Amino acid sequence: MLSLKDYQELIKQKIESQNFDLMPTELYEPISYTMKLGGKRLRPTITLMTCDIFNGEVSQAINAAMGLETFHNFTLLHDDIMDKAPIRRGQPTVYKKWDANRAILSGDTMMVLAYDYLLDSPEDLLYSLFKVFNKVGKEVCEGQQYDMNFETASSVSLDEYLEMIRLKTAVLIGGSMKVGAIIARTSEENSKLIYDFGENIGMAFQLQDDLLDAFGDTSVFGKLTGGDIRTNKRTYLFIKALEIAQEEDRKRLTDLYTIVEEDNDEKVKEVLAIFNKYNISQLTRDLMEDYYSKAMVFLKKIHLSSEKEQMLTKMADSLMKRDS
Amino acid sequence: MLSLKDYQELIKQKIESQNFDLMPTELYEPISYTMKLGGKRLRPTITLMTCDIFNGEVSQAINAAMGLETFHNFTLLHDDIMDKAPIRRGQPTVYKKWDANRAILSGDTMMVLAYDYLLDSPEDLLYSLFKVFNKVGKEVCEGQQYDMNFETASSVSLDEYLEMIRLKTAVLIGGSMKVGAIIARTSEENSKLIYDFGENIGMAFQLQDDLLDAFGDTSVFGKLTGGDIRTNKRTYLFIKALEIAQEEDRKRLTDLYTIVEEDNDEKVKEVLAIFNKYNISQLTRDLMEDYYSKAMVFLKKIHLSSEKEQMLTKMADSLMKRDS
Repeated sequence: MLSLKDYQELIKQKIESQNFDLMPTELYEPISYTMKLGGKRLRPTITLMTCDIFNGEVSQAINAAMGLETFHNFTLLHDDIMDKAPIRRGQPTVYKKWDANRAILSGDTMMVLAYDYLLDSPEDLLYSLFKVFNKVGKEVCEGQQYDMNFETASSVSLDEYLEMIRLKTAVLIGGSMKVGAIIARTSEENSKLIYDFGENIGMAFQLQDDLLDAFGDTSVFGKLTGGDIRTNKRTYLFIKALEIAQEEDRKRLTDLYTIVEEDNDEKVKEVLAIFNKYNISQLTRDLMEDYYSKAMVFLKKIHLSSEKEQMLTKMADSLMKRDS
Repeated sequence: MLSLKDYQELIKQKIESQNFDLMPTELYEPISYTMKLGGKRLRPTITLMTCDIFNGEVSQAINAAMGLETFHNFTLLHDDIMDKAPIRRGQPTVYKKWDANRAILSGDTMMVLAYDYLLDSPEDLLYSLFKVFNKVGKEVCEGQQYDMNFETASSVSLDEYLEMIRLKTAVLIGGSMKVGAIIARTSEENSKLIYDFGENIGMAFQLQDDLLDAFGDTSVFGKLTGGDIRTNKRTYLFIKALEIAQEEDRKRLTDLYTIVEEDNDEKVKEVLAIFNKYNISQLTRDLMEDYYSKAMVFLKKIHLSSEKEQMLTKMADSLMKRDS
């Protein structure tokens, strides 16, 4: 067994060995820029790890892993246009650095490239692999649409929010693991279990992301907090607060979320004070722990060696920034 | 053997039987709208026809044909954003009817749907089919990028223009035929020959389109002509005229192509007068005939029955609006 770092290094080397400097330059330059920008490369890393855990040949999974990373990056290019996001991984987004047309078309090309990477997998597994990939691909698009709908919806329920993050984020975490499991040729039962493990960890991962956005990551010094609050994004924290707060606080929270001006630290402070009053941070962590426990139930059912179970647990903990 | 009309009817029925009314409505409504808007459904029709010509099971090719139609429609959704096109098939384009975000995301979903249709093809052919599909997909994106580049390029050569239309249009015609040939399990040699036939017919088809845009289609009464001229689009006609016109006409043509105002019939008349002076229409038809002849050389090499050869010739003629 390799370590998480080793899988990450394998992906890093693979990406660096790719030649994206093709013609026309205008099309491939944003692809090279995006692919080589770095990031955690979480999805391909867990594909390789899962393949290894089920005794597969890691080298057989590297192209599928690249496909998942390329697909994920394609969604970022298009999401950033839709969300008008100026910065990604500390650098200008493609649509800001160039323009929306370049981001649309480079994104489209990356989606084809993603399928082309996936195609270089063992031939007898292509049907199963593409089936997972297509299902996840559709769901990620559906999740992004719900996310956009929420911007203008009169209200969003907790269930609706959780279904949105499941589609937009969690299924791709589950899918990345399932792809690794399929390439390792483990049983269908195991592939399903590891998908469910991944999807539940993905839910906890996204809730953690919501939490960090509001309260900051003490390990990342100087990170600006409250981005979601500033842009009036309804996250789990906001929806939960609305659900349980008293009339007066609910009204105040709703009013605060009509302020468009983003450079408003007073607003952030006031929202956080309401969140604190109702213990939202703890309630979010409780829900994360629920998903974590569910994930662990699926994991136990696979009956892996304790070394392998530990490895997956460690990965899950690091995603949730949970002390294990 | 069925007739062209029969294949078209098969595709029409298949599309009508599909349920695109899925959730979220905002995502799937534009997909249903686009898929059911009609159009010639040229690409899936020729996939079925090619499969039949090589003695394949037409029913085995219907999903791949749907994949090609869905892929083509996806490119239209995104191209219409990039080209700011308000009308398509006589109806508002998706980005006009809804907005650019909807057109981006519905387009992305259609691309996944395209791959999902293609996946429901005979399993042992998946690798070959996806290989063709991915190659064509990348090339279509490259063609669209070149087309966009040409809008601001200081000059465009004839070769550059022909390579652009090859990528943007012709390869998908060739690819649609090759997919049909692969599903019919004909020889690799035949698949290659029918691709080359299709690509060359695709070139002639696009040149015909350029010609009709300028000079109109006498068979379509009342169609507004000169759209490309009004928007200063450099087509084969314009580039050829620039190449062979005398200094004075060349200068005038260049000046005319700086006029931004689209409602300018005088401009269209003057440009057409220059085209006529240099016999551009005939020169374009000559080049179309060159491509047609090249296509026929590839066709002859396949050694089909005269009935089948005639069918492909008829299809090619109808695409070129050529009297056969």
